[in-house]
Amino acid sequence: MTKRYWEDFSAGQVEEFGRRTLTEDEIIEFATEFDPQFFHTDPVAAKDHFFGGLIASGWHTGSTLMRMMVDHQFANSSSMGSPGLDELRWVSPVRPNETLTAKSEVLETHPHPKRDDRGIVKFRHTVLNGDGDVKMTMISNVMFGRRPEEKA
Amino acid sequence: MTKRYWEDFSAGQVEEFGRRTLTEDEIIEFATEFDPQFFHTDPVAAKDHFFGGLIASGWHTGSTLMRMMVDHQFANSSSMGSPGLDELRWVSPVRPNETLTAKSEVLETHPHPKRDDRGIVKFRHTVLNGDGDVKMTMISNVMFGRRPEEKA
Repeated sequence: MTKRYWEDFSAGQVEEFGRRTLTEDEIIEFATEFDPQFFHTDPVAAKDHFFGGLIASGWHTGSTLMRMMVDHQFANSSSMGSPGLDELRWVSPVRPNETLTAKSEVLETHPHPKRDDRGIVKFRHTVLNGDGDVKMTMISNVMFGRRPEEKA
Repeated sequence: MTKRYWEDFSAGQVEEFGRRTLTEDEIIEFATEFDPQFFHTDPVAAKDHFFGGLIASGWHTGSTLMRMMVDHQFANSSSMGSPGLDELRWVSPVRPNETLTAKSEVLETHPHPKRDDRGIVKFRHTVLNGDGDVKMTMISNVMFGRRPEEKA
């Protein structure tokens, strides 16, 4: 597998990847540490409330997307981290045992404004379940190193 | 402590809260599960690279902010989750053993466009370390239930 540099991304590229199911136990464990609101941690209390059952913390869904991105897009790349997100939407609740997959679209690429060893890729990522229902969308900026020049 | 409803938030409110240190082990554990890039998981390899040492996954920093928000802003409130973030910036790296705190500013509030039992609060949150260096900023929208009418 060839290493992926900034030059290898271009606007319009679409990729689909990843497959991850969050169990009830995993949802509760994550939320107990990072987002202990009852609709993320207490299946009984959640049943009688507005979501009608336990749902994953949005940070759990986002972190799960990140893992899919690392495994499938960044694993063998020159990724240098992210300056941030331009938008994130939690479109519909993620419930226990739903299978999540990801879709990635490159919106644009541009050289880093100050440093000539790297560039920025702006992505739109979508998290979907097995029925194609959209769970989350995210527009992010990721830095990648530029391809080293071949020595003559 | 009185329960906090949508009506209790108003533009301009500022709160500072939370205190959380991420150890090297915690940074590696989170990243091994959700963001296994070497600069988040391998202190030795990270030392020779662009950040000059191990740094926390941005999702770990964001999830840690969420925990501080839940503990200090949402614990005894009518919080109903979030439709999403309008912006998130990872301004500078979070390194092991830095003490993180949070600042919250209410940017605006408005009733839910469709449902009269809830409203939206738009926050700007900032994560800082003990020296006041900004680590992360985030603009989020959070739904809160409206205060039930007093029965006559």
